[in-house]
Amino acid sequence: MAVVGLGGAVASTAVAGVELLRLGSGTTDGLPFAGLEGVAGLARYEDLVFGGWDLCGDNLAKAAEVHGVLDYRQMQAVSSALEGVVPWPAAGDEEFCRRVGGDNVVAVAPSGGSTGLRPVVDHLVADLERFRSSGGRDGGPLDAVVVVNLASTERYPDLADPAFATAAAFEAAVDAGHDGIPPAMVYAYAAVLTGCPFVNFTPSVGADVPALEELARRHGVPVAGKDGKTGQTMMKTVLAPAFRSRALRVEGWYSTNILGNRDGQALDDPASLASKLGTKGGVLDGILGYPVEDHVVRIDYYRPRGDAKEAWDNIDLVGFLGQRMQVKVDFLCRDSVLAAPLVLELARFADLAQQRGESGPLEQLGYFFKSPHVPAGARVEHALHEQERALLEWVRTGSASVAGAE
Amino acid sequence: MAVVGLGGAVASTAVAGVELLRLGSGTTDGLPFAGLEGVAGLARYEDLVFGGWDLCGDNLAKAAEVHGVLDYRQMQAVSSALEGVVPWPAAGDEEFCRRVGGDNVVAVAPSGGSTGLRPVVDHLVADLERFRSSGGRDGGPLDAVVVVNLASTERYPDLADPAFATAAAFEAAVDAGHDGIPPAMVYAYAAVLTGCPFVNFTPSVGADVPALEELARRHGVPVAGKDGKTGQTMMKTVLAPAFRSRALRVEGWYSTNILGNRDGQALDDPASLASKLGTKGGVLDGILGYPVEDHVVRIDYYRPRGDAKEAWDNIDLVGFLGQRMQVKVDFLCRDSVLAAPLVLELARFADLAQQRGESGPLEQLGYFFKSPHVPAGARVEHALHEQERALLEWVRTGSASVAGAE
Amino acid sequence: MAVVGLGGAVASTAVAGVELLRLGSGTTDGLPFAGLEGVAGLARYEDLVFGGWDLCGDNLAKAAEVHGVLDYRQMQAVSSALEGVVPWPAAGDEEFCRRVGGDNVVAVAPSGGSTGLRPVVDHLVADLERFRSSGGRDGGPLDAVVVVNLASTERYPDLADPAFATAAAFEAAVDAGHDGIPPAMVYAYAAVLTGCPFVNFTPSVGADVPALEELARRHGVPVAGKDGKTGQTMMKTVLAPAFRSRALRVEGWYSTNILGNRDGQALDDPASLASKLGTKGGVLDGILGYPVEDHVVRIDYYRPRGDAKEAWDNIDLVGFLGQRMQVKVDFLCRDSVLAAPLVLELARFADLAQQRGESGPLEQLGYFFKSPHVPAGARVEHALHEQERALLEWVRTGSASVAGAE
Amino acid sequence: MAVVGLGGAVASTAVAGVELLRLGSGTTDGLPFAGLEGVAGLARYEDLVFGGWDLCGDNLAKAAEVHGVLDYRQMQAVSSALEGVVPWPAAGDEEFCRRVGGDNVVAVAPSGGSTGLRPVVDHLVADLERFRSSGGRDGGPLDAVVVVNLASTERYPDLADPAFATAAAFEAAVDAGHDGIPPAMVYAYAAVLTGCPFVNFTPSVGADVPALEELARRHGVPVAGKDGKTGQTMMKTVLAPAFRSRALRVEGWYSTNILGNRDGQALDDPASLASKLGTKGGVLDGILGYPVEDHVVRIDYYRPRGDAKEAWDNIDLVGFLGQRMQVKVDFLCRDSVLAAPLVLELARFADLAQQRGESGPLEQLGYFFKSPHVPAGARVEHALHEQERALLEWVRTGSASVAGAE
Repeated sequence: MAVVGLGGAVASTAVAGVELLRLGSGTTDGLPFAGLEGVAGLARYEDLVFGGWDLCGDNLAKAAEVHGVLDYRQMQAVSSALEGVVPWPAAGDEEFCRRVGGDNVVAVAPSGGSTGLRPVVDHLVADLERFRSSGGRDGGPLDAVVVVNLASTERYPDLADPAFATAAAFEAAVDAGHDGIPPAMVYAYAAVLTGCPFVNFTPSVGADVPALEELARRHGVPVAGKDGKTGQTMMKTVLAPAFRSRALRVEGWYSTNILGNRDGQALDDPASLASKLGTKGGVLDGILGYPVEDHVVRIDYYRPRGDAKEAWDNIDLVGFLGQRMQVKVDFLCRDSVLAAPLVLELARFADLAQQRGESGPLEQLGYFFKSPHVPAGARVEHALHEQERALLEWVRTGSASVAGAE
Repeated sequence: MAVVGLGGAVASTAVAGVELLRLGSGTTDGLPFAGLEGVAGLARYEDLVFGGWDLCGDNLAKAAEVHGVLDYRQMQAVSSALEGVVPWPAAGDEEFCRRVGGDNVVAVAPSGGSTGLRPVVDHLVADLERFRSSGGRDGGPLDAVVVVNLASTERYPDLADPAFATAAAFEAAVDAGHDGIPPAMVYAYAAVLTGCPFVNFTPSVGADVPALEELARRHGVPVAGKDGKTGQTMMKTVLAPAFRSRALRVEGWYSTNILGNRDGQALDDPASLASKLGTKGGVLDGILGYPVEDHVVRIDYYRPRGDAKEAWDNIDLVGFLGQRMQVKVDFLCRDSVLAAPLVLELARFADLAQQRGESGPLEQLGYFFKSPHVPAGARVEHALHEQERALLEWVRTGSASVAGAE
Repeated sequence: MAVVGLGGAVASTAVAGVELLRLGSGTTDGLPFAGLEGVAGLARYEDLVFGGWDLCGDNLAKAAEVHGVLDYRQMQAVSSALEGVVPWPAAGDEEFCRRVGGDNVVAVAPSGGSTGLRPVVDHLVADLERFRSSGGRDGGPLDAVVVVNLASTERYPDLADPAFATAAAFEAAVDAGHDGIPPAMVYAYAAVLTGCPFVNFTPSVGADVPALEELARRHGVPVAGKDGKTGQTMMKTVLAPAFRSRALRVEGWYSTNILGNRDGQALDDPASLASKLGTKGGVLDGILGYPVEDHVVRIDYYRPRGDAKEAWDNIDLVGFLGQRMQVKVDFLCRDSVLAAPLVLELARFADLAQQRGESGPLEQLGYFFKSPHVPAGARVEHALHEQERALLEWVRTGSASVAGAE
Repeated sequence: MAVVGLGGAVASTAVAGVELLRLGSGTTDGLPFAGLEGVAGLARYEDLVFGGWDLCGDNLAKAAEVHGVLDYRQMQAVSSALEGVVPWPAAGDEEFCRRVGGDNVVAVAPSGGSTGLRPVVDHLVADLERFRSSGGRDGGPLDAVVVVNLASTERYPDLADPAFATAAAFEAAVDAGHDGIPPAMVYAYAAVLTGCPFVNFTPSVGADVPALEELARRHGVPVAGKDGKTGQTMMKTVLAPAFRSRALRVEGWYSTNILGNRDGQALDDPASLASKLGTKGGVLDGILGYPVEDHVVRIDYYRPRGDAKEAWDNIDLVGFLGQRMQVKVDFLCRDSVLAAPLVLELARFADLAQQRGESGPLEQLGYFFKSPHVPAGARVEHALHEQERALLEWVRTGSASVAGAE
C-alpha cells in the first residue's frame, strides 16, 4: 500500500495493526472480512507492506504517539517497526486544504508553476515504481501496489471544468500546470499511470471525474471511492433501511459530530467541510425513496476528544395514525479504529479486482463508502446490508448485481 | 379479526386506524406492506372487521379514550364507529396474569372447575362461529376469521408438562380441567378447532407447544408468533447485523425500557416479566454468532409516559486493536402505534397463508416477532433485513428460504 | 403588559395562561413565584392585561392556533378571549431581522426616511398612552404598563456608534433618522419616554447601551434584560456551579439546539444568530472562574419540532488524577412553555421595582436572563441558585447583594 | 487515615493520588477544597498517611493494577510507594456482604462465636493504636487517626434491634457475640473506643444508630456519613433544586446505573442493593417539597465497564399550562475518581471537627453524602449548593445553619 497521508491517524493505525497481527498479538476484531477463506488471490493482512507520502516527515512511531490511538503496550510492541516507516515528500496544495500543512514537500513546484504539474506527476510515478521494485520487507519487489488516499479533506474543485471531462483535456491541463487540479486528482493520475489501483477513502475529488475514469479504463486500473463509511453515516445506512422497512416516515434527521483530530482540524475550514458534508448528505433519500427535507448534518472541531469522536443523531419519525416518535443515537467512536481495518480490506479487494482483470470504478466496494463511485448512470445502493450482500457475491462469483430491487 | 384483548391499546388503535382508512382520512404511514399490489388473495385494510374478547367490557370508544393514543380530531372521526365495537366476555385466569383483571368473563368456570375447560373452549368456539357467520358490517358472513392474541403477558406455564407434548394429551387435559393450561393456549385451541389462523403477538405461550402444532396441522390451521417486534428489539435486530458485518465485537448490551400502559402494569408482575424478558433476550447471540455475556434487559413500569414508551440501550463494542467504543440508542416511541399496523399485516398474511393451503408455524412471518415460532429444529433468523427478504420472497413466490446463509 | 411581538408563541402562551388562571382551570406549574405571598405591591397574575405590537395582525386566537402550544381543551376555553386581543401595527426593520416579516406596520416610514424615526417613536408612545388610559378589561385605565420585548432576534447594531453613548446623541440620531438604530431600541426609547418599565426578553440590543440607561434613569424607569434564560442556558447555570463546587474541570462544553418555531426561523439568519450566540456564550467562564476554550454553541432551524425544542449538551470533565469523564444532557423542552411564565414574573417584578422607586438596570432580575443587564462595572452573577437567593432577598427587603462571593 | 476496605478501587486511588501530589506530579483537579487556605488545623493532602484493613491481603500496587484506574505513567510513578501499603487482616462477615470475600481475616471468630465480638473489637482497637503510635512515614506517631469505611455495601441489619438503642445494650450485645451486628458497626465502635473520628462513605449502617451516637458523644468522637454522593445522586441534588426553583413539577424520575467494579459485584446481591437504593432514593422529595411517586432507581452489575460507570437519568417535568417536558442525563463517570478526593476531604474535615471539640454526627458534612447523618430530629438538607454554603460557613466560623429556609 502506498498511502497519501501516511502520517495520519488512520494510516499509522493501519500500519500498527498489521504489525501486531504479524507479531501474533493482534486480534481480527474490526476486520470485516477476516473470516473469508479460500478466495484465490486475496492477500493476507500480514503480507501488506506500507509506504506513502505525507506533508509531515516524521516517522510513524512519532506520528502514532501524537495521534494517541495505540495503548502503551501496543506502542511498545510496534514502535521499532513504525520507526522504520518514514513518509516520502508529498504534493500538497494550500489552495485546496488550508488548515493542515507541513514542510515535507516534493522538490518541484506543487501547482501552477511555469513547469506545469507534469514534474510532480513524474515524481509521484517514480515514487511508486521505486516502491514496487524494492518496497518488500527484504528490499525486493512487491507483487502489486495499491494507492490509498487518506489525506485531509480538500475543498471542491470546479467540477464543470472542461479539464475534467476527457482524458486528453486532463493531460493537457496537467502539462499546462492548470491550477484547478486538486492534489487528490494528481495522486490518482500518478497511480493510474503506474498501473496501481487507486482507493479514495476521503471526500476529496480523486478519480471520480470522467477524465480519470477514462484513463483508469485505458490503463486497466480499478478505482474505488469515496469517503470511508465508518461511524455516523454507516449507522445511517443501517437505520434508514429499517425505517423504510417498517414504513416509519423520516420527517427529519439531525446529525452532529464532534471530533478533535487532524481530520477535524481540516474540516474547520468551511471549504473542506463542504466536501465532507456533500458525501454525508446524500445517503438518506436514496434509501428511503423520498426526500428528507430536514436532513441537517453538522461537523464541529472540538479538541477535548482528540481522535475519539462523538456522533449524535436525532431522527423524527411518523408512524401509524400520523403519530410522532423520536430516535436518538449517540456513537462514541474512535475514528481511526473504525477506518483503519476498512482501509486494509479495501487494499485487498482493489488488488483482487485488478487480478480479476477489472478496471474503472469498482461499484461492488460501495460497502466501504459514504458516496460510492459507480459507473455513470448506475444507481447507487446505500443500504449496508445490500452492499454487503453484493460484495460477498462478487468475492465468491466474480460478479454482482449491486443495486437491490426497488 | 377476532382479538384476544380487544379493549387494549394496540387493538383499539388498530380498529381506529382501519376506520380512518375507510373514511379516507388516514395515511399508510407505519403500514409496512401498504405498497404491495397485485398479490392475489391479500385482504385490503379497509375490508378488515373486528370482534373479540376482553376482561373489560367497555366499548372501544371508551377504551380508546382511556389509552389516549388517538388525538382529538381522530377521536371525533371514529368514536361512533368504535362505540359499536363491544368486547365479548373473556376467559382470563388470574393465576397466569395477576396485575390486569376485569369482570367481563365467560359465564363458565375459567379453570380448574369440576366441569373442566371444555365448556370454556366450547364457548370461545361458539363466539368465533357466530362472528364468522354474521360478523360482517352488514350482518352477513365473513370470508375468514383470524384470531390474534393481544392480551396482557401471562406467566410461563410448565413447558415440560406432558399435557403439552401431544394433541391427545392436551385434549384430555382440557377435558380434565388441568389447571396448568394458560388462557393463551385455550384461545389458540379454540381458534384451531374453528379453523381460524392463530397469531400470537404476545410473549405468552399459545400455539408454540408440540400439542398445538400437531392440532394446527391436523386442522389445516396456520399459526404464527410470538411477541411482536416493535421497538427496542426491532432496533436490536437492525443494529446487531451491522455490528457483525463490521466485525465490531459486542462486549455488552444493556437495554432498559420504561412504559406506563396496561402492558407495563402487567409486566410489573415478575412472573409475567420473565416471559417477556425470555422473548427479548434471545435475539442477539443468534445474529452475532457468539454469546454476549453481558446482555441485560430491564423493563420498568413508569406511569408518567402512559402508552408512550422509552427504550434506552447502551452497547459496548470492541473494534480494531481491541479499542472500545460505545453506542447509545434512545427510542421515544409509542407502543401501540408501532404494534397496531403490524397486527393488521399479520392478519392479512395469516389469512393469505391459509388460502395458500399452509398450516402449522409460519416461519416466513418471523419479520414481525421477537421470538419467531418455527418448525421444530429449524434455525431462527432474527436479522430484520433477512426476515424482510424472506417474507417478500414468500409473498411473491409462495415459498421462502427463511434462514440466511451462516 | 404591552408586548413587542404579541403574536408570537411566547406572548400568546402567556396571554392564554393568564386567561386560564382567571377561569380557574390553570395551575401554577411553571410559575416560579406563585408561592410568594404578602409582598406589598406585587400584581396578581389574574390582574394582568395584554396589548402590544406585531408585524402580523392576526388576533391571538389565530396566532395560538398556528403556534400549536395549547391543547385542544385549552384552546376551546380561551379562544374567545384570545380573539379579542389584536396586535397593533408594529415598527419592524428588515435590515435588522430578515427572516421574519409581516404587513402590520405603523403607517410612518420605519427607518431612514426623510422624516426621521421621531414619528415612529411618537406613534409608539401614543399606543402606550392609549393603552394605559383605556386598556383595562372594562375600558378603564390601567395601574401601570410594562413593555416587554418578545420580538424575533435582531442582528447586532454597531455598539461603538456614538449615537448610543449619550442620551443627547441618541435623541439627535432619532430625530435625524439614523438608520443604525434597531427596532428594539426604538421600543425601549418609547417605553422610557412614557414612563413604562422595559423588559427585554430577547438577545437584541434594547436598553443596554449608555444612552438608554441614562434616559431610563432620567425618566425614573427601570429596565431589565436580556434574553430569557429558559432551557439549555438555564441548565448550564445549574450544572456549571456544581462542577465548580466539585472541582471537576470543564475541558469542553458542546451545546446544540434544534428548534422549528418562528424563533428558529429568525435565527436561520446568521446575523440574528450571532446575537443569540453572544448571550448564550458568556455564562460559563464567569461561573467557573477560568476560560473554557472549547465552548461551542450551535442553534439549528429544524422544522419537525415546531415550538418543541431539543437542546443537547456534551460536557467533557477532568477529575482527580487527570481522569476524563463526560456528561450528556438532552432537554426536550417547549420553548414557550418555559418562557411564558418567566415573562409574567418579570412584568410583576419590573412593576414592583418601579413602585419601589428604582430606575435603570435591575440587576436583581438576573435570575431570568442569559445575559443579565447590570450597571456599568458590576460583576455579573450567572449561577441560578445565587440569582434566586438575590432575587428573593430583594423581594423581601428591597435590596440585594447580587454577586456572590468569588 | 485507617481505611476499611483499603484494597478497594476508591482507597487505592486515594493513596495513589496523595502520593502523586507528594511527588509534585498530581494536580488538584477533583479536590473540592484544594483552594481553602489559612484554615487553622486543616491537614495538608501531602501529610496524609494510609493504613487499613481488607479481606484481600494484596499490597496496593497489586490492587491498583486490578482496578485499572491509574494510567500507565501514574502506575510507574507510584507503584513502589503502593507496594509498601499492605492491608491488615479484616473483620468481614459473609452474612452481611455475600458477593465479596477474601481470606485476609482477623484470627478470631468474626461473629457469633462463643467468645463474642469483643476479641474482634479489641483486635481492631489494637490495630488503630499501633497505627497511631507508629504509622508515620518515619515510623513515628501520627497527629491523629481518622477511620474511613470504604468497604463493600452490607445488607441492612434489623434497625429495630434493641441492641442498637443504647450504648449499654450495644456493649452487652458485643460481649454476647450478638450476630445481628454488622461489620461496619464493629469498625465504628472500635474507632469510637480509640477516639478516632469515623467516616462512613458506604450505605452500610455504621455509627448511625442511637447506641453509637451515644458512645461517640461520650468518647468525644465525631462521626460522619453516609454513602458518598459522587455521581448520579450528586447530579440529582443539583438538578432538583433548579426544577423546584423554576416550578417545573417532577412527575417522574427514572435512574439507572451500570457498573462493573467490586462495588457493582457487591450490589449484585439483592440485600446489599436494598441498602444502596435506600440511600439513593431519599433525596428528591426533601428538595422538591412533595413526593415524587414515580421515582425509580436501578443499579445493574455490567462488567464491560469495570470501574467506569454510567448513570442514565430520565426526568419527566410538567410546566406552564400542564405541558410535559423531558430531561435526560447520561453521566459517563469514573466511580473511584469521583469518590477518592471526597474521601480525602472528609478525613481532613473530620479531623478538623475533632480539633474543634465536636463530637457525634457532623451535619455540616452533608455536602459529601447521599444520606447525611444528622442529629435526631434535624431536617436533612440535600441541595448541593445549600450544603456547600453550610460547609464553607462552618469552615470559616466554626458553626453553620445547615438546613436552608423552607
